Parts: sequence; structure tokens; C-alpha cells
Amino acid sequence: MAERDPRPHVVVVGGGFAGLEAAKALPGSHVRVTVVDRRNHHLFQPLLYQVATAALNPADIAAPIRSVLAKYQHVSVLLGEVTRIDTARRRVIFHDGSELDFDFLILATGTTHSYFGHDDWAEHAPGLKTIEDALEIRRRVLYAYEAAEKESDPERRAHWLTFVVVGGGPTGVELAGALAEIARFALKNDFRRIDPGEARVLLLEGRDRLLPTFNPELSDYAARSLGDLGVDVRTKVRVTRIADEEVECLDAYGQNFVIPAHTSLWAAGVAASPVAASLGVGRDRAGRVQVQSDLTVPGHDNIYVVGDLAAMTSKGQPVPGLAPAAMQAGRQAAANIVATINGEQRTPFVYWDKGSLATIGRASAVGSIGRFKLYGYLAWLGWLFVHILYLVGFRNRLLVMFQWVWAYVTYQRGARLITGAIDQKRLTE
Amino acid sequence: MAERDPRPHVVVVGGGFAGLEAAKALPGSHVRVTVVDRRNHHLFQPLLYQVATAALNPADIAAPIRSVLAKYQHVSVLLGEVTRIDTARRRVIFHDGSELDFDFLILATGTTHSYFGHDDWAEHAPGLKTIEDALEIRRRVLYAYEAAEKESDPERRAHWLTFVVVGGGPTGVELAGALAEIARFALKNDFRRIDPGEARVLLLEGRDRLLPTFNPELSDYAARSLGDLGVDVRTKVRVTRIADEEVECLDAYGQNFVIPAHTSLWAAGVAASPVAASLGVGRDRAGRVQVQSDLTVPGHDNIYVVGDLAAMTSKGQPVPGLAPAAMQAGRQAAANIVATINGEQRTPFVYWDKGSLATIGRASAVGSIGRFKLYGYLAWLGWLFVHILYLVGFRNRLLVMFQWVWAYVTYQRGARLITGAIDQKRLTE
Repeated sequence: MAERDPRPHVVVVGGGFAGLEAAKALPGSHVRVTVVDRRNHHLFQPLLYQVATAALNPADIAAPIRSVLAKYQHVSVLLGEVTRIDTARRRVIFHDGSELDFDFLILATGTTHSYFGHDDWAEHAPGLKTIEDALEIRRRVLYAYEAAEKESDPERRAHWLTFVVVGGGPTGVELAGALAEIARFALKNDFRRIDPGEARVLLLEGRDRLLPTFNPELSDYAARSLGDLGVDVRTKVRVTRIADEEVECLDAYGQNFVIPAHTSLWAAGVAASPVAASLGVGRDRAGRVQVQSDLTVPGHDNIYVVGDLAAMTSKGQPVPGLAPAAMQAGRQAAANIVATINGEQRTPFVYWDKGSLATIGRASAVGSIGRFKLYGYLAWLGWLFVHILYLVGFRNRLLVMFQWVWAYVTYQRGARLITGAIDQKRLTE
Repeated sequence: MAERDPRPHVVVVGGGFAGLEAAKALPGSHVRVTVVDRRNHHLFQPLLYQVATAALNPADIAAPIRSVLAKYQHVSVLLGEVTRIDTARRRVIFHDGSELDFDFLILATGTTHSYFGHDDWAEHAPGLKTIEDALEIRRRVLYAYEAAEKESDPERRAHWLTFVVVGGGPTGVELAGALAEIARFALKNDFRRIDPGEARVLLLEGRDRLLPTFNPELSDYAARSLGDLGVDVRTKVRVTRIADEEVECLDAYGQNFVIPAHTSLWAAGVAASPVAASLGVGRDRAGRVQVQSDLTVPGHDNIYVVGDLAAMTSKGQPVPGLAPAAMQAGRQAAANIVATINGEQRTPFVYWDKGSLATIGRASAVGSIGRFKLYGYLAWLGWLFVHILYLVGFRNRLLVMFQWVWAYVTYQRGARLITGAIDQKRLTE
């Protein structure tokens, strides 16, 4: 940055829903903007489970941040990993030690997995946050069937054909439904020694129902639908240990039990991205930053935290960690920065609830919009429509639609590739 | 395999063009077949460079071997890496020590890169054989622009924006053309500090012309077309050293020169897959097995080697390493196995030359069919048509066609994702 630019510099850290919306909403007349991300792409996380379950390609649900922002001439994009914020010196610190000055900061780095202190579980039960996570899950799921086909011992074969999903929120429900469909439909005729339909999918949830943030009626519907797909849904079950070949649990009666399974997936806990700690302000139990009603952090009226990284409130109510909420908050932060520059009053964030949706499988979903509840086919169509609508890029929309129609008609999954290294232990087992 | 099956067992090692065609051509009335591959997917290698250059997704050019063979009930598929053939005991030995008996063997494991004894070049100049190779190249190419955007020193910036392709065969020509197009078109408006159009692409070839297996007129045309795209084509140049940040060469006059470049790609040498050595039969300089005219190996009339792994001849002439030749040879091996079982005479392989094609870039290609030579737009249309036709799976054909039309109209590349680990040194540089 050799030339002097008189405009205040806004640094947006994170190219997710919140960060991109903020960058787009900031006017070049008032500010210059740098968007920093450690990835070169914006990821449409709501469809990540479809990459993990071989329905979509990585590139279908990702768009280069540079392309998305190409026409915003006052916005630069920088690839880099931010490890720390120096609030006093108004600098963003990268992991190689380099720094970037800001006048205003919008921090939107989202969340990462949390294994509730059991970080050793991570290798046995990968979570689903990045493209790499999704490809790792795809690799393990597809490889389990290959290993089962090779295995002559019926018991060990059954262990390869057991899939455990930990966590009954939307991601867990979607993963479990998709895994059941793979077993029943997509792989049906492909094996000679095993019947993929024999695969068991277990969905474990610690609380008393699936989708705890949804209406209880919808939770019931989801549990029944998953049951119809052959998923073994267990609520009030706490996972106490995850190893390479088994998952140990504690049920509501205090009984321990062990599920022998080669493939476990983690859809349970999330924690705020660790960079939040360097702000030195109050955070909740999940590590999310407690922002003020105008989305700034206490003591720094030039630092905003938005999206999943923030414990945001709207009219005193907590705001859910959904893409629409993140996008709205990003725009609000942009508006408040402009207000500050213009010497005007910042306004509090008001969340407009657009409802929530979760698919269960082929032609089935649940959702709510305000007081309305949606079930089954209609909810599923709504889900399709909303997700196509929110996908970034016309090309991606067309490609995803095509692949969904194809999968719906043929019951096949188009992205059944095992790529990358399968660890040797698994291959030789 | 508990039950006894009276049919002879044919093991096909390798799920490429040759192996798949052989498996499909073997009749269930005569044999049972096991196809072994260390990958779960058949890869359409002629389009791999399009994955490397962010035009296509991995899954667009790959199909699960199981799906491809699902309707052939007498064919089983096994995921596993074959390290050795025990010809005396008629067994295939896997890398975990397990074994598989065969009555007939069709070995079709193809080729791997050869760095002509300089294996240390591999890390600096990745080759292009697998999906992982393609993603690694894509990662390096896209990351080079990101690093250049961050770099303030003009000289070091230029090194990030220099791309060296070693080897002027079809793969090298296609890669160089695609790299030039990325610089000129796809990234045009996405950067603020660098102009991607400043990127230099060098194509180095040791012999006196590009595409040495093509007609010299076509070589000239290709060189001119690449020149028009801005590629710096250097023939009669031998590479003597490849390091992380430079490539050292020797020109026709015996002069050494150094090209400072962060990104080098290897499209020069191939060598036969190492498993060929265990057959204990004659091999050529590239390690390819010298098969007899009926495609069996000397001394073993039940062992066939086909595709790129074999130095095949047809009417005394060497057969080129092209997909149609591999497919024809696979079918010939199948026919000869059936003839042997029926007590009939095996017939020699006769290659039917369908011509060859190479794209240079947007709307430009060269090719020959028999005595006819094709240039420019017409050759390009022919190339498109042939590649769509040979792609495995209707879904892939539609998806690839859609993405090509999209790319043609918009000049964009749809799969611009940097995924996987970029090594720390590169990130912090």
C-alpha cells in the first residue's frame, strides 16, 4: 500500500456470510476495505454435508472470495491466517508475524468444532466445517464399504458397516439421513459380497429430542422420518469415549454401552474461533464474544464482531447461529461504521427471523417460519428453493440444481470419489 | 469366496481404459472376473489438466469403478494396491501381504511420472497423473497469484508470477495454454495490486519441436498459437535442475540459464508402473513390458499386459499410448482369454488408429486422423466432441458440457478452490 488513501481502512476478517455481506455493504465513498481469510473461497456451509455424503462437488458450494468481490473496486482480498488482534495498536496480526493496520475491524471468523475437552476424539470422529473435513468424511464413509466388501469375518464386517453420528442438531440429522440413503439406494447394486442395505446408522443426541432449537413437533417428525429411513435414533445419550473402532455412551438410566463402529462423525459441539480471545472482552461458555446491541465490543467502538463468532442479541433475545442472521449482522456492522464516520448515532441490531429448515432425506424436511410449521415434501421443496437462492453465483446454482435433479431421478450420488490418503492402518486392516 | 465357482478366475489389475474395457468384454458365461485398483474410481486422464487448471471438478472426470461395472454380475471390484505378481503360483500380492489367485491375469496399471533419475525434482515440479496431483497443481497455481498480491518487492512478485511447464507433449501444451488463459482472462479483475496478465508462462521442450509425435506442421501451428496466447515456448532446452524457486536449463548451444519461478509443473517423462518388474520379462527403457503380438508375456500364455504399461506393437509398428489404443488392447486380451478357454487360436492385436488431438486453448487445437490434419476451431470442436463421447457416464457428460459452455461464454473457471495444506514455508514466505 504505497499510495496514501485518505479513506478510513476497514479490515474484515472472515469471508463467510457475515464478512462478505459487510464488505459488500461498505461504501467506497466512505472507506477502503480489506477482506482477510485463510481460505481463498467463501463456503456455503449449509450444503457441506452434501459434499461429505458424495452428492456434490466441493466447487459447487464454494466461490472464490476474489470473484465474489471483483466488482467492488474499493475492496481488496488477502489470503492469510489471523492469529491475534492488537486492539490498542489497531492491528491485525497474522500467523507469520506480519501485521495490518485498521481503523475499523469487523471480526467474523465463525466457529470451529469443539470436542468438549476431548480433543483426542477428533481423529476418530471428524467434524464438518471445511471442504477438507467434508472430503475426509466422504473418504471414510466410502472406504468403510470397500473394507466391508473385503472382510470375511461377519462381525468385523458389521463394524465396518456401522456409522455413528454424534449430535442431533440440523447437521447431525442431515448427515444421518444422507448416510441412510447412501446405504439403501446409491450403493445398492455395487457390491458382490455385502449388502449395503445392512449398514446401520446411529444418531446420538444428548438432550431429550433431535433438533432442540426447533419446535418439539418438528423434532418428533424428524425422528420418525429418520426411523423410516432406517436410522437408529437415540436421545438422552451422552458420548463418553470415542476410539478408532468403538463409541462408548451413557444412557439416561446411567448405563454404559459400547457401539462397535469404524466410522464416527462429529456434529455435536462448536466453539468460537480462538482469535476471539485476543480481544480481551467478555465471552460466553462457547467462547463467543458478548457484543453490544450495536455489534461493537465493550470499550472499542471501532471493533465489531458478527456472525457465529458473536453472542448477538436482538431486542434482548439471543440470535441463532444461522446464515441469514450472519448476513443481517454483517450489513448492520457496515451501516454502523458509516454512521460513525458521518458522526451519526449507531443503531442496534434487530434480527429478522426468516425461519429455519433442516432436511431429513429424499423429499423430506422440517422447518418453521414464524408461527408456521412445515413438514415433509413441502418443507423439502422450501429447503431446496432457499438453498439454491442463497448459493453464491449463478453457475453454482445451475450446477447444484442439475445434480439434485439427477440424484432425485436416479437415486445416485455423483461425487463418489475416495481421494487423498487413507491412513495405512485402515488400508491394511 | 466361500463357494466354489467352476469358471476360471480372471484378475484385472487397473481400472483405467484398458482394464475396464477388458472387464466389460469378458463374458460371464466363461469366466468370473475381479477388477483390482488402488483407487475406487476410473479417471478420465485426458481431461485431468482441466482439473489442474480449475476448469472442472474432480468428480466430473471420474466415475466409481463399482458403478461402471455394477450391471456386470460376474465382475467383482476390490480396492487394493498390488505390489507384485507371483507368476509361478499364479497370485497377485497386495501391499498388505494378502494374495489373490488367478487363472488369467490382465495387468493394466499404466504409467507414473519419471523424473529421469532426479526424484528430488518431484516436490518442486509436480506431475499430473492422479486427482491429488491435479489438486496440488491447482493449489500451487492459484496460490502463486495470492502470494504475488501480498508481495511488495517487484522482483519477487515476478517470480511468483512465473510458471514453468517442463515437457512439450500434449499434456504440457494443454497445461501451458490453460495457464496462459487463466492469467489473461479468468483472473483479470480479481486483484488490486498485481495484474495477472503480467504472468509469464514458459513451456520447455528438449526436442526441436512441440508435440513430437504429431506431424511437424501441427507442431508449428501449436507453437504459434501458444505464442499468440503469450506462452514463451523454448525448444531444444534441457532442464538440468529444478529447485523451489528456480529452474536451471541447458540450451542447444550448451549455455546454462536459470529461470526464477516459484511454480514449475512436470509434463515430461513417464515410466511404467513398478509392478511390471515382478513379471520377470523383457522391458523397454521406459520400463514398459514387451508383450507378444497376442498381448501375452513371453513364457506365460495366461498373463496379459495391456495399455500404457505395455510396449505394444501392431503389424510390427509401435502403438501409441492413447486411450483408444488401451481400450482396443483391453478388448483384444479379453477375446484371447475366451479363445484360450475355448481351445481356439489367439489372434494378434491390430491397432485401429483413430487419430490424435491436443487442445491449445480456447477454441484452438491440432489433430490428425489418418492422413488428414486438423487445425484451429474445427480441431477444437472435434476435440470437444471426442472427449465428451469418451467420458464415462451420461451425468459426467452433461456436467462437463455445461461447464465448458459456461467457461466459453464467461471466460471464467468454475473450480477455483485452494484446498488442502499449503506447506507452511510457502504460506509464510
